[in-house]
Amino acid sequence: MARTYLDHNATTPLRAQARVAMIAAMDVMGNPSSVHAEGRAAKMMIERARTQVAELVGCKPQQVVFTSSATEAAALAVAQKARHGGTFAALPTEHDCLGVWSEHEIAGQQDRDGAAVVPSAALSGLVAISAANSETGIMRPNAKVAGSGAGYSTICDITQVAGKVPIIYEDITPSYAILSAHKLGGPKGIAALINFTADDPAPMLRGGGQEMNRRSGTENTVGIAGFGAAAQAAGDDVAAGKWEEVAYFRNILETAIADASEQTIFVGNEMPRLPNTSCILTPGWKGETQVMQMDLAGFAISAGSACSSGKVKASKVLLAMGYDETEAANAIRVSLGLETTNDDVLRFVEAWTAKFEKHQKRAA
Amino acid sequence: MARTYLDHNATTPLRAQARVAMIAAMDVMGNPSSVHAEGRAAKMMIERARTQVAELVGCKPQQVVFTSSATEAAALAVAQKARHGGTFAALPTEHDCLGVWSEHEIAGQQDRDGAAVVPSAALSGLVAISAANSETGIMRPNAKVAGSGAGYSTICDITQVAGKVPIIYEDITPSYAILSAHKLGGPKGIAALINFTADDPAPMLRGGGQEMNRRSGTENTVGIAGFGAAAQAAGDDVAAGKWEEVAYFRNILETAIADASEQTIFVGNEMPRLPNTSCILTPGWKGETQVMQMDLAGFAISAGSACSSGKVKASKVLLAMGYDETEAANAIRVSLGLETTNDDVLRFVEAWTAKFEKHQKRAA
Repeated sequence: MARTYLDHNATTPLRAQARVAMIAAMDVMGNPSSVHAEGRAAKMMIERARTQVAELVGCKPQQVVFTSSATEAAALAVAQKARHGGTFAALPTEHDCLGVWSEHEIAGQQDRDGAAVVPSAALSGLVAISAANSETGIMRPNAKVAGSGAGYSTICDITQVAGKVPIIYEDITPSYAILSAHKLGGPKGIAALINFTADDPAPMLRGGGQEMNRRSGTENTVGIAGFGAAAQAAGDDVAAGKWEEVAYFRNILETAIADASEQTIFVGNEMPRLPNTSCILTPGWKGETQVMQMDLAGFAISAGSACSSGKVKASKVLLAMGYDETEAANAIRVSLGLETTNDDVLRFVEAWTAKFEKHQKRAA
Repeated sequence: MARTYLDHNATTPLRAQARVAMIAAMDVMGNPSSVHAEGRAAKMMIERARTQVAELVGCKPQQVVFTSSATEAAALAVAQKARHGGTFAALPTEHDCLGVWSEHEIAGQQDRDGAAVVPSAALSGLVAISAANSETGIMRPNAKVAGSGAGYSTICDITQVAGKVPIIYEDITPSYAILSAHKLGGPKGIAALINFTADDPAPMLRGGGQEMNRRSGTENTVGIAGFGAAAQAAGDDVAAGKWEEVAYFRNILETAIADASEQTIFVGNEMPRLPNTSCILTPGWKGETQVMQMDLAGFAISAGSACSSGKVKASKVLLAMGYDETEAANAIRVSLGLETTNDDVLRFVEAWTAKFEKHQKRAA
């Protein structure tokens, strides 16, 4: 059976440009730390990719530290908290890779419109504020990357915005940003910490001194080449406005589902959102059940973020936004990609509606 | 100009089997944490590779923790020292990724035969003892992987032995072993910590709970698939005795160089050594100069390990073995691969001898 993949916020297919770059990189066999010609060729390939990522992110190449995941980039950034007031806090809506290190709750606005992205409480130390939430797609006001403030520094998770919307910084840039290749059409297992501060991060991984002593370990040359190529292609697509059609399809999807189910809520749809994301909450119908039913029907979607989707529990993002346990367990995330077609969306709505009607009969 | 690559201990070309597996993995696009069919396919691919690596290493699949480098595996293992007596020490001949964490010197035998691999001093806490040294190729007695002892636990660096010689453990296995895919024909940027203990390592990277909560972050699926395929192929080649011919070529190389230069020393050539490695010390001729001259002549070799080869300093391995600064600066490492031919070796010796004769005239 042909499958329809609508879980692009979990991961998105490898772009053709990344694939080509990766296959080419397989033949660049030297160790980038070696001084001979083979080593220098590998080193050059890495530096080219660093420039490509820097261009997408809007930073200097030397501010890019390649890591194996946004999770590693998050841990590396949080490890610098001593330089930024000594404490670290994340909004409850942040991804677990940041939330897990959070030392105290930020008492911000947490309402159903997702205003959690603008904490009202006084902030201090190092604070994580994502540019967009992966589950709801809700972006920060004016779609800007969070800057550091008067009494605090920020780590901004730009994983979901990079390659989907233009990256625009507040007047004061964050101290750190993190992003991951596989969310923008690069391979899994390669990511970056963007260090906007004047100080190099104190390394977690030590030894050979790679990445200018900021992160030792022989570089993932194939992955880095793929990341660079994907970053460039993703930036070109954003500039060409290719996500506008995706947003149109997403809106069609929501309109059609609203037609089929009056009670269904589209979380954050009054807020600035990622163009591709729909968080669909249908009272009385478990998201987990919907994911399995749609999987059987040939559609890949999720309930919550991929990392925690194996775990059967209510979305902590929706809980933080004021939904109760029962409501939060009733949400699914449908996230479209650049290759998603109008037909994909219509078939999804048709299949979902059929399952929904069955569910209603069963519940009645 | 056709190049001859003789720096296989720094990194070795991607095996055909790894290349095929990686290209196939590019189409397995799901996030391994996703519950839908695409996610499950990615997860299965990882578990298959885990089994392949476990078979090479001789451990249970669940003892394999995929990391982004042996450097990361080393840091993760060292972070467990609290469970093993609270201290960590590495022999001075260990790779920097372990040596950098060492808290005290181990007063072991450090003689010119490389007997440093058998520390005579009483050991305690967590101790790093590599199975083979990357610069000299010297292996532990009986080519066995270091086991934990009465008062201490071990981390054994098996990076250079894995895929070159059969992996044989002492009666008591180490607590941890580390190895890297790119040394055995897999891609760079993927490696493993082998955890032989009953306790899961306390994770450095936290968030999504991947790798059974031992190492969070979306998995490098393409790299892992390549690692698995390379591990299997490497194990097959070891079993088929393919490195015996490589050892023969290495011995031809040393014999021919000894003919050309009486004063040249082959470090550790009376010891059990990796089949492919020759550490060649020619008094009065800087290794760094030799590397550059041979690079210009079309041969890739190194002076010391790749990670530190960019740095102009004497090999700390040779210093630890009792060579003085001047002697230690005069060494090169030539490391052969499975594809190295008799002709490669003879051309190397010819080019090296020509440079050596010029050097002698200049020095005279």
